[in-house]
Parts: sequence; structure tokens; C-alpha cells
Amino acid sequence: MNARFYAPDAHELGAEIDLPGDEAQHLSRVLRLKAGDSLTVFNGSGGEFTAVVASATKTRVRVRLGDRITAKAELPMALTLAQAVLKGDKMDDVVRDAVMLGFAAVQPIVTARSEVSLSALTRSDRHERWQRIAVSSAKQCGRAVVPAIAPPIAFEGPASLAHLPSPQFLLVEPGASTAAVTVAGVGAARPAAATLLVGPEGGWTPGEVEHSAHHAHPLTLGTLTLRADAAAVVAGTALLTHWKLI
Amino acid sequence: MNARFYAPDAHELGAEIDLPGDEAQHLSRVLRLKAGDSLTVFNGSGGEFTAVVASATKTRVRVRLGDRITAKAELPMALTLAQAVLKGDKMDDVVRDAVMLGFAAVQPIVTARSEVSLSALTRSDRHERWQRIAVSSAKQCGRAVVPAIAPPIAFEGPASLAHLPSPQFLLVEPGASTAAVTVAGVGAARPAAATLLVGPEGGWTPGEVEHSAHHAHPLTLGTLTLRADAAAVVAGTALLTHWKLI
Repeated sequence: MNARFYAPDAHELGAEIDLPGDEAQHLSRVLRLKAGDSLTVFNGSGGEFTAVVASATKTRVRVRLGDRITAKAELPMALTLAQAVLKGDKMDDVVRDAVMLGFAAVQPIVTARSEVSLSALTRSDRHERWQRIAVSSAKQCGRAVVPAIAPPIAFEGPASLAHLPSPQFLLVEPGASTAAVTVAGVGAARPAAATLLVGPEGGWTPGEVEHSAHHAHPLTLGTLTLRADAAAVVAGTALLTHWKLI
Repeated sequence: MNARFYAPDAHELGAEIDLPGDEAQHLSRVLRLKAGDSLTVFNGSGGEFTAVVASATKTRVRVRLGDRITAKAELPMALTLAQAVLKGDKMDDVVRDAVMLGFAAVQPIVTARSEVSLSALTRSDRHERWQRIAVSSAKQCGRAVVPAIAPPIAFEGPASLAHLPSPQFLLVEPGASTAAVTVAGVGAARPAAATLLVGPEGGWTPGEVEHSAHHAHPLTLGTLTLRADAAAVVAGTALLTHWKLI
């Protein structure tokens, strides 16, 4: 099987395009491909092509696009993950897993109990890092779509996530909300889109749960106690299973 | 909430028992509890108790058991994970996740494409390490049961896992077996026990899939391409959801 590279400029059959810098380095320095070698490229928005190396130096690689090939099917619904930013590099794992599971987008949020401030996040390079991880996970999992990783925002009040798709499901611990349903209690009819909200290590505050109730359905996963960095993949898998997508 | 410790000797109300060495160190050196302080202990086989520190030095901690308390409910079925040993410390994550998800036991197996040999594993301390990780994950997730992590064995032919509970499900990539069903195709009636078989990074050989067909149902997860270290948690969650356990 040909090696597979991310090439956001790949759109037009027969075109000759540059690979992004780190993809070029991977091609020329690690895999040591040369002019004339075959590869596959995907553009991150669903397009996938055969291609041939036109020229390769250590710093610049140009490839010529061949045929459009059938990309791996995306989920027939657009799932967004609104994930509270976690400590250390745990958020990296969540982004990687969300892409693997087929999420269409990730919205990092800063909640009352997040241990990092929005201004510290904004000053750091973490948003760019998460975008690189999304590319890398899409490569690994064979997706031709790289999910959008939005810049982090504050989670404040009912309106703060109004721009994300509905229905919205707020993952809570058992007992955190009397209105909470288990996955089996979620409607069987699969919506066209949905958002899953997952809190930080310390969970949501009672106020956050209460204020969210107007626009998000509280969801529990039985009696399981999940690590914060595993919650999204477990809840996401449960919803995909419930909606017969896996 | 009181700190929670693993005490395999905790069985009899009123008894005074030693904590294991690393639990004693955690209690005295990290949390700096002293004689008279309250704690909770669980024995790893389902028993959980209030307790009081009777004496604590840096190397030895004795606790006096108080009342038996209601332990967190275990899943109403015994799920076993037969997981091909993965590279590096990825197997650690799988053990940790399996305990979090409520698996009753883990059987590490060495398959044709495992990148580690059974003899190298047996010489190493990895089995003891996985057992420690199981204790640590049970502490974190509030389980009073520490799942048994069996010594690794070779996966060779249909009989090699005959000692594990049936029905058995062999997780395969889409197309690896014409007999494979999706989770939705698994019977809705929840069995009393089941085993999930998950292969290594390189997957099962065609021969392994074929030979397993007599005693294990090939199972696929739609078109998802999962990392080897994420396969068990995703497939396990999908089965738990299918059987209405979460």
C-alpha cells in the first residue's frame, strides 16, 4: 500500500502541488521517497488522490496528482465534541481519539473547574498542536477528512455553545442531575448532527449542569467511573453504538 | 471523602491488618495520615470497609477495620478481555482501561504477529506490572474488585482459549471475515459471561481468524479504523451499550 500524506492543496486532477513542510520532511527524510515514486494524498476535506513525486529535496516536495480515489466513508452524521481542556497532554489523547472515532469537529472549552485559563491557552501553541494531532490521527485512521479543531472558548452560560449542533448531550456523573438519562434512554432516531459535552477532571459545577439543562440533555453512563481523558471516547462510542453506526 | 486503599487482607470486621507495602507508603509518606485517621479500604474481591489507622510508620501501616460498606456495583455479567500483548507500554493503557470499563478478567495472549515472545514476557516483570496497574485503576474508578490479570499465554489454535468464558467475540477489521457481524448483529440477549479477543498492532493472521471461527464470533466495528491500544475500550464499550449496561 502506498504511503499516505496530507496535502491540503490537493483539489485538481493533474495539478502539481507542494506538500506541507512536515509532510515533505516525512516523505523525503523518513520514507526516502524520490521523484517518480507513487503515493496517496488526502486533502483533509474529503478528497483523496493517487499521486507521483515530481521532485523531492529535503525541504520541498512537489507531487503531481493522479486519479481521485474513493475516500473512506465518513459517519452519516456530524458529531461535535465540546471537550473541557484537560491537564498536561491528556487533551492530545482526547483529540486523537475523537478523530479516530469519526467526530466531525472538536470545540475545546474552558469551564469553571478547568485547571488552565483561556488566556494561558491562547498564549500557548496548544491549539496548533491539537490541529497537528488531528492531521496525524486522520492519517493513521485512514480518514480523508481532518476534523476542525476550533480555538478554545470559555464555557459560560447557556448561550456559549449555541453555535454548536443540536441536540447537545452533557455527560454527567450518575446523580449529578435528576434529569439525566442513560444512553439507552436517548431517542433511537439518529439526528443529522449532535454535540457531546465532556467536562474537566473535576467535573462540571452544579451551576454549569443546571444552566445547561435548557439546551443540553444530561447523559450518564450507568455506574462507570471514567477517567476524564477516557470519557469522550467511551461516551462517543456508546452514542455511535446506540445509533447503530458501529 | 476518605482516601481509599487496597487491602487484600481485609475480610473480618474489627480485625487489625497490614496494608501492602506500596499502599502503606502512599498512606504515610504521600497523604501523611496518622494513627486515628479514617480511611476506606477495599479487598479487591468485592469487600469494602471503613477503617482507622492503628499505627503508621514509613514502612508499615496497620489499620483496624470498621463497618462493611456497600461497594460500587459490578457489571451483572463477567466480561473477559483476551488481549494480544502490545508494544512498549501500550498494554498498560489497555489493562487500565479494561478495569475502568468493568471487565472481570484480562488474559494477555501472544499471537503470531505479536512483537514480543512469550519467553521474553515471562522473563520480564510485565505481568506483575499489569497487576499493579489493575489495582491502581480499581482504586481510581471506585471498584472494590481488582480484575484478575492472568499470566500471558500463547494463542495457538482453537483450544488455546477454551478455558475463557463463552460466547467469545474476535474483533476483526472489516472484510477480514465474511462471517463477521457488527455489534448491532450480536444477539440482544445478554449472556452471563463473554470474552472479547483483540489482536496486536499487526492484526490477526488469516489463519488465526479461520481457526477461531469454530469457537469465536468475528465482530467488526463498522468502518472505524482503531489504534490497537484503543480497540479494547471501543469494542468493550460497544458491547456494554448493546447489552444496555451503560
